[in-house]
Amino acid sequence: MNKLTSPVLMAGIPLQNADLLYAAPFSGSDPVVFLRDGRRKHLVVGGMEVARARRLFGKRLQVWAPAELPVNRRTPRSLTEWCLGLLRRLKIRSVLVPDDFPAGMLQRLAGAGVRIQVLAQAVFPEREIKSAAELARIRECQRVAVAAMRAAIGMIRGASVDRRGELRDRQGVLTAERVKRAIHAVMLRHDCMGYGTIVACGRAAADPHATGQGPLRAGQGIVLDIFPRHLENGYWGDLSRTVVKGAPPPELRRMYQAVRRAQALALAQIRAGAVARRIYELVLNYFTQAGFATNMAAGKMEGFIHSVGHGLGLEVHEGPRIGLQDNRLRAGQVLTVEPGLYYRKIGGVRVEDVVVVTAAGCRILHRCPHVFQV
Amino acid sequence: MNKLTSPVLMAGIPLQNADLLYAAPFSGSDPVVFLRDGRRKHLVVGGMEVARARRLFGKRLQVWAPAELPVNRRTPRSLTEWCLGLLRRLKIRSVLVPDDFPAGMLQRLAGAGVRIQVLAQAVFPEREIKSAAELARIRECQRVAVAAMRAAIGMIRGASVDRRGELRDRQGVLTAERVKRAIHAVMLRHDCMGYGTIVACGRAAADPHATGQGPLRAGQGIVLDIFPRHLENGYWGDLSRTVVKGAPPPELRRMYQAVRRAQALALAQIRAGAVARRIYELVLNYFTQAGFATNMAAGKMEGFIHSVGHGLGLEVHEGPRIGLQDNRLRAGQVLTVEPGLYYRKIGGVRVEDVVVVTAAGCRILHRCPHVFQV
Repeated sequence: MNKLTSPVLMAGIPLQNADLLYAAPFSGSDPVVFLRDGRRKHLVVGGMEVARARRLFGKRLQVWAPAELPVNRRTPRSLTEWCLGLLRRLKIRSVLVPDDFPAGMLQRLAGAGVRIQVLAQAVFPEREIKSAAELARIRECQRVAVAAMRAAIGMIRGASVDRRGELRDRQGVLTAERVKRAIHAVMLRHDCMGYGTIVACGRAAADPHATGQGPLRAGQGIVLDIFPRHLENGYWGDLSRTVVKGAPPPELRRMYQAVRRAQALALAQIRAGAVARRIYELVLNYFTQAGFATNMAAGKMEGFIHSVGHGLGLEVHEGPRIGLQDNRLRAGQVLTVEPGLYYRKIGGVRVEDVVVVTAAGCRILHRCPHVFQV
Repeated sequence: MNKLTSPVLMAGIPLQNADLLYAAPFSGSDPVVFLRDGRRKHLVVGGMEVARARRLFGKRLQVWAPAELPVNRRTPRSLTEWCLGLLRRLKIRSVLVPDDFPAGMLQRLAGAGVRIQVLAQAVFPEREIKSAAELARIRECQRVAVAAMRAAIGMIRGASVDRRGELRDRQGVLTAERVKRAIHAVMLRHDCMGYGTIVACGRAAADPHATGQGPLRAGQGIVLDIFPRHLENGYWGDLSRTVVKGAPPPELRRMYQAVRRAQALALAQIRAGAVARRIYELVLNYFTQAGFATNMAAGKMEGFIHSVGHGLGLEVHEGPRIGLQDNRLRAGQVLTVEPGLYYRKIGGVRVEDVVVVTAAGCRILHRCPHVFQV
């Protein structure tokens, strides 16, 4: 429930602004203006988009063409004018805007006499709690991620190992780039896009942000992190596995076993009411006791160097986190659960699944088999 | 040359903010803070990204980790803190920010004593003039667009026509969706992504924004509009063709011939110093004289209902326009040249190529054959 009393005004391209997309799920690459006044919702879209918007939203929100509003005819494309025209038409003089509202537009609106307050809190805190329709969309993206993961692991499993320890298949050396393209091709077949996909092998994977490049090698951990976004509705999936071709070094196997165990520990704790920080500390302490300390080595943090997980929905990273904060989990939140270990001299290990929090525990949204040695 | 005297401060995710990407071409999905103070440039990136940023930029800009700045240790991820830390470290008290700077961050910085002015003009007006390196990137995207166009037209050419007039190939009915997927697959093989690709057949194509769906049909115009964005460097290509399977209705053929002629007229006028508005009016008048009037029909504009073209670079639509403005074209600008005609009862026709403006005229960036009947 949102108790904001003044109307809320937003402007931008919905697919580039999760709150706006939540308020007005309208695909396309053109900007819109959205206003919520109590229970009534209004959307201004370009003249060429009006018919599509009216078909899509029906009576759920009122769609306006700029030409239907008292806007300055000399600057009919100005988003500021769209805002002003809508506010004039609805006789609204005072609005709330989100934190990321464009500063220049805020100043122009204020200059035109609109009273504006920038919201200190989230516009839609209810975004953290997913509806059944949202769950279905995230699950669908997760299904695509699982299909892409199967394809990627299949390529690694099917490869042979040459004298230098590099993976090879019929097309030659198997590189991170080729595996990423195969992953993206699966996403595409399901109307999703992938950007920043991680296929990181060996020591490169010790940096959780390294996306990976060059030949994949046997006997080294390969972190696969796949996060498809649906091109039309904008929801995300997120899935990670770590595999090794051939025999893993004993230390890597121990890391993998610890990470799997840590994920099981975290999953067992997740339920409505659980305190995020306790889950994070449980994982951190388990790793330490298992011999995988988190600390600074040669100027870089090593060990368990990120949080246990994060919210997932219209953003690939959204609230809440399972980290150092004391937030309590709530039923309907969708979270990644992705413990990992990173050591410069060995590499990285991460496994990640997505769950929805329930009163009694949590449910994995679309299961993906766990494999390590392939 | 930019004559701004105060330092310019920007914050956000470069791939989502063309000015920021221009200032600091840094891929990835994490936010950064950028500051230009005279000739010196500074970039704050998350701790895990520092090494990559330093490798990438060398001495061209100074890369800072938040931990190297006097930031509040309780909120180390706050972009506002990154800004404040950098400004404190450099002893800067007064900054300019772009029009789209987040309003909340502006207020927090101002509350911390920073003097801020929102820029009324573009931060980097020089973005309109492309360097040789930028031209090469746009040309590469255009090459990908041409490859995707060939694949799409090949599918239509290779299809047969069933009794109902629908196109068919070995996989069944040839739909707009399948052609789009083939286009996206070509983009992906070249590390580009496509979003909003248009494959619009028949009357649907009378709306230049309709992206197209369902079976493609013989004897109707099919507008193909392909705009790949490179996943790493963020530059765009943009290419349109209109084809028809089998015999076109005479009216559609006449429309196509007029659009081709209009494009040739526009191309012949484009050179450094040419006034954009004159080119637009030339095209509009030519269409009118050729029998293709632009006016309101049943509440909707019909005819030549968009501009002749727009700038292309780190945004798919950027300055300048070839429309109703009196701007003079300048050497080094990259522009689409895309006249089109749209009539509700017939459909749409558009052809689009990308040129770089030179002193003597213009040069098409990567040629694509013109075909109509396939």
